[in-house]
Amino acid sequence: MERTAAFVIIALLLMGCSGKNVLKIAEQGSFTVGGIILKDSLGHTYHGDHAYVFYQKPVGTRKYPLVFAHGVGQFSKTWETTPDGRDGFQNIFLRKGFSVYLVDQPRRGNAGRGTEKVTITPTFDEEQWFNRFRLGIWPEFFDGVQFSRAPEALDQFFRQMTPTLGSVDFDVYSDAYAALFDKIGPAVFVTHSQGGPVGWQTLLKTKNIKGIVAYEPGGGIPFPEGQVPEEGRVLTLSNKTEGIEVPTNVFMEYTKVSIVVFYGDNLPDTDERPEIYEWTRRLHLMRRWAEMLNRLGGDVTVIHLPDVGLRGNTHFPMSDLNNADVARLMYDWLRDKSLD
Amino acid sequence: MERTAAFVIIALLLMGCSGKNVLKIAEQGSFTVGGIILKDSLGHTYHGDHAYVFYQKPVGTRKYPLVFAHGVGQFSKTWETTPDGRDGFQNIFLRKGFSVYLVDQPRRGNAGRGTEKVTITPTFDEEQWFNRFRLGIWPEFFDGVQFSRAPEALDQFFRQMTPTLGSVDFDVYSDAYAALFDKIGPAVFVTHSQGGPVGWQTLLKTKNIKGIVAYEPGGGIPFPEGQVPEEGRVLTLSNKTEGIEVPTNVFMEYTKVSIVVFYGDNLPDTDERPEIYEWTRRLHLMRRWAEMLNRLGGDVTVIHLPDVGLRGNTHFPMSDLNNADVARLMYDWLRDKSLD
Repeated sequence: MERTAAFVIIALLLMGCSGKNVLKIAEQGSFTVGGIILKDSLGHTYHGDHAYVFYQKPVGTRKYPLVFAHGVGQFSKTWETTPDGRDGFQNIFLRKGFSVYLVDQPRRGNAGRGTEKVTITPTFDEEQWFNRFRLGIWPEFFDGVQFSRAPEALDQFFRQMTPTLGSVDFDVYSDAYAALFDKIGPAVFVTHSQGGPVGWQTLLKTKNIKGIVAYEPGGGIPFPEGQVPEEGRVLTLSNKTEGIEVPTNVFMEYTKVSIVVFYGDNLPDTDERPEIYEWTRRLHLMRRWAEMLNRLGGDVTVIHLPDVGLRGNTHFPMSDLNNADVARLMYDWLRDKSLD
Repeated sequence: MERTAAFVIIALLLMGCSGKNVLKIAEQGSFTVGGIILKDSLGHTYHGDHAYVFYQKPVGTRKYPLVFAHGVGQFSKTWETTPDGRDGFQNIFLRKGFSVYLVDQPRRGNAGRGTEKVTITPTFDEEQWFNRFRLGIWPEFFDGVQFSRAPEALDQFFRQMTPTLGSVDFDVYSDAYAALFDKIGPAVFVTHSQGGPVGWQTLLKTKNIKGIVAYEPGGGIPFPEGQVPEEGRVLTLSNKTEGIEVPTNVFMEYTKVSIVVFYGDNLPDTDERPEIYEWTRRLHLMRRWAEMLNRLGGDVTVIHLPDVGLRGNTHFPMSDLNNADVARLMYDWLRDKSLD
């Protein structure tokens, strides 16, 4: 009887405390980081241009937390629940034992307190984003695209956009991210789209970035002076060049950490649709970038997802229907680089 | 030996799975809710005026979730980590077993995609908010005020403000909150400041509000036609009257759920400083409101925190230094009303 009772107690405890999907969070909270303080002539203050951060640390967390940077037009929601209601990278990587830091960069989302006067005008441009984010050519989805056809998913997708409250300033963004890395210690930076070049800049401002995972990084790719490839001198839709020149010693910084870059599917071969071909050009450029860095002793891997068997991915592989597979690739890379 | 082994196993399991501070989350995620879709003459769309919601459900959650509404100038951070870095109501009530829904109302924080053109101008008004939120009279804190004197806490406090991206519109706000209650089912609404009157309006638009906890509700208090008390006809600093007239049958709606209202400390007796006296006037008005509703069969309790022994509270009791005591009062009320 006693033995049976003990067995039952143990079984109940095991059931009660380890439900397979239960997240065990040792610590969670939020804070703002970085930013500046403006003063007027009378000494009155205005605090702004900080980032906002929500973090969660699971029980028995792995060594390096993951810091997630969103891209243009979006905020930390990029990494949360997917538009069709499944786990995003926040939950997926918490379940894999990683601490996660979800960031709203300065002037975006919960970090809306910018330091500039700005006028926001609602713009009927959702069809352009549908194309640019490679769901399809509006109103048709690409065949086999990894995005739900439920109307509610597209509704959620459009509503996870939010305006930029000030001018686009990678210095302001990277200052705040660097302040975050300085505060939390060594970590891996996971970036998306416009967050990609923000990541390249942040790496130069803190010693605590141990690796970078970049999903579809956008324009603003640093090349050594005089060595920007021809495609890097093309103007982006934001009217800047795809590549930027940096001194060679700065370029060498990118040889010092392991970097992996992922691009999704449906990258056209021609520039008939410039808003989509931009991503093809960036894949080409990142491959050149990797070759140059790896020749100099770097460790940069560029993965075009169809080449490793993942098809139909949009500009948002982290929330696509096959995001669990996308996450597994990232996890395998982290493990290979001893960053897990 | 066997008995000892079983005992050790049980002890280890108890330790391993119930670390006192571990949050066991059965489910968490985010979504947008409510909002409208604008169309231009060509049929192009613009999705906006939704709310953004982050929710967490602990293992073995209680019956009614808590939905948290922020006030003017702030966003869901109001309920997260306090400015001095301690647990806010999000974590405190998760630990007590409640599901929590943290909301950014339309045109605020992560729900920044409003439907109106708006110009945001950084304003050097932090000293006014210091006073209006009753930390003290700038630059002096009130004696014994429940706010940390660490400069970092005040820095975080100012940075948890974020602009309103469109006109202030309680209809837009309450529409989105009502959509949330319709989506999630019966729940308790916990409101702060401007969120208070948003709560009074939301109650009329959904059947799923089972109780309301209002911290320092602001102006916009519904009274029956012709029965707005004299203090309710005073203009607020936002140039609206403190009280608003509603038909008697609408007023009767507030008799149908249990409501508790809390106000903090340092409410002046005179209106020498109008930005602070507003809160005294609102305490007076909410007491009148409670009397009228209770005479009609309602269940409204108004608690001035110093009257129950809590001193020094600001306009933000939920994040004050004694917020665990403030939470206990709320918890006791929920239990008394069988809302736990």
